[in-house]
Amino acid sequence: MKLSEWGEAGLIRWLAGRFSGGSGVVRGIGDDCAVLAGPRGKWGLFACDMLVEGTHFSRQAPAGKVGWKALAINVSDVAAMGGLPKFAVVGLGLPSRTDAAWVRRFYEGMARCARKFQVRIVGGDTVRAPRSMVTVAIWGEVERKRLLLRSGARPGDDLWVTGRLGGAIRSGRHLSFIPRLTEARAIAARVPLHAMMDLSDGLLMDLPRLCRAGKVRAELELAALPRHRGVSLESALQEGEDFELLFAVSPAASRKMERWRSGRPRCGLTRIGRIRSGGRGPVVFGIDQKGRKFPLPEKGFSHFQ
Amino acid sequence: MKLSEWGEAGLIRWLAGRFSGGSGVVRGIGDDCAVLAGPRGKWGLFACDMLVEGTHFSRQAPAGKVGWKALAINVSDVAAMGGLPKFAVVGLGLPSRTDAAWVRRFYEGMARCARKFQVRIVGGDTVRAPRSMVTVAIWGEVERKRLLLRSGARPGDDLWVTGRLGGAIRSGRHLSFIPRLTEARAIAARVPLHAMMDLSDGLLMDLPRLCRAGKVRAELELAALPRHRGVSLESALQEGEDFELLFAVSPAASRKMERWRSGRPRCGLTRIGRIRSGGRGPVVFGIDQKGRKFPLPEKGFSHFQ
Repeated sequence: MKLSEWGEAGLIRWLAGRFSGGSGVVRGIGDDCAVLAGPRGKWGLFACDMLVEGTHFSRQAPAGKVGWKALAINVSDVAAMGGLPKFAVVGLGLPSRTDAAWVRRFYEGMARCARKFQVRIVGGDTVRAPRSMVTVAIWGEVERKRLLLRSGARPGDDLWVTGRLGGAIRSGRHLSFIPRLTEARAIAARVPLHAMMDLSDGLLMDLPRLCRAGKVRAELELAALPRHRGVSLESALQEGEDFELLFAVSPAASRKMERWRSGRPRCGLTRIGRIRSGGRGPVVFGIDQKGRKFPLPEKGFSHFQ
Repeated sequence: MKLSEWGEAGLIRWLAGRFSGGSGVVRGIGDDCAVLAGPRGKWGLFACDMLVEGTHFSRQAPAGKVGWKALAINVSDVAAMGGLPKFAVVGLGLPSRTDAAWVRRFYEGMARCARKFQVRIVGGDTVRAPRSMVTVAIWGEVERKRLLLRSGARPGDDLWVTGRLGGAIRSGRHLSFIPRLTEARAIAARVPLHAMMDLSDGLLMDLPRLCRAGKVRAELELAALPRHRGVSLESALQEGEDFELLFAVSPAASRKMERWRSGRPRCGLTRIGRIRSGGRGPVVFGIDQKGRKFPLPEKGFSHFQ
């Protein structure tokens, strides 16, 4: 069997079964970060994300933006757990013909992101590679009672997203997005969140993950979906690389959010649907403007396919 | 300027200047691991290492051994700081045509290494890439008073290595070496170590790093160098990928080691030279069997050249 047949989802399922738990592991593979034994009253958060030229960015992409994105996607993972990033290490593979100026601009872009979100870049590795590629690993912390997992959504919860969705790749936003760290901390300080994750592969790929983790279903009010200007519903649902946060809160918390949110956070907050109890078959349903309900396919970005 | 002219050493020097210190950072770029604020009485250790097909291993290399090595080089980094590894995350880039069986064997090899050294693999990322490449990031801990840096060597210290050097690539040992974690802990429990690092790029590349970090020079007794069978002195000095530990201890500690070491640790321990006070010019000197002293060039494996 080729990896293209096994698929990214099959591989991750196998990995989650193969490498599960162990001493000091609160939550292993399967959420935005691993949750680990940490300093008193806190958990450690640990994650890594890769970017590969040709897969995630083109050779023409500005080096500084590639550097920004390589760290920002990791900051987004920590934000999605309710935590704060602390330290990062950077593995960078480069062809020998690369301009030194490209490398400096890459790290300057990463340094801007590090400064903005108070991440200390403390080490890494640089090697020769056939194409540019970067892996950033991030270590963060979260107060134990503030930890947010994908798995906590409950039937009756409302579903919300930060910001707007769609068109991230065509517009170049995928290279310069702002990870929703400040927003996640501000929202979680005001209302109890039941579940949260970041949207990297598109809502129709990521929302089913939140549903399966919590053994629930979801209904999306398609007309409510906050889209970037000129972006189709299809792109908002499937294109991915938005790095907005998706979260579930109780109806009472939802009402509190409605009152609080006017103009805060500046990225915007939108209620996009509701959590229903789980069952067999499709886990995500669309609701159109006439109130008709229909299952939505799981489509979005998947590696190896 | 191309990266090939800047060189790996130039890049790392620039990085160490660009990303230095910050809150919670005891030691940033420039040692085998970063040393960070950690749980009470301990420091956190954080590092990452990459392997790229074509640079570090061939397509014909057994997948299980590649997986073993990808984690083992990181365990070796933690061992070199005197610490114990705790958690690892794995970024894996693969062509879509890769066999699923290759991927499973890769992770099984890594799992063997994880079990042996009690590392929990807690997360990662899998992406499409033009060639196989893997980055492992590791988080470890060290008791504060047991921390070992590259920079602590003092004039008069003796220089020691674990195991034997040379021929790692030709023999395939570079894919199946045993990181010297147990040995590092056992030695450090018995004698106070002044400085330690692991040998990845060859003694003539790595020893100058230890010298510059401590502002000292080193003399190598070339005939004393423990070599693998059939390996030339040149290979033992320059080939790299040995992942043995190099360390400096006081003459008194050295005598204690001489008495203790018979048969322990099993990998062997050899005194190979001495630390001298620093100065301008070359930092590593060879001493031949007639007692003649001459400067040794800094040669070994360097990326981008």
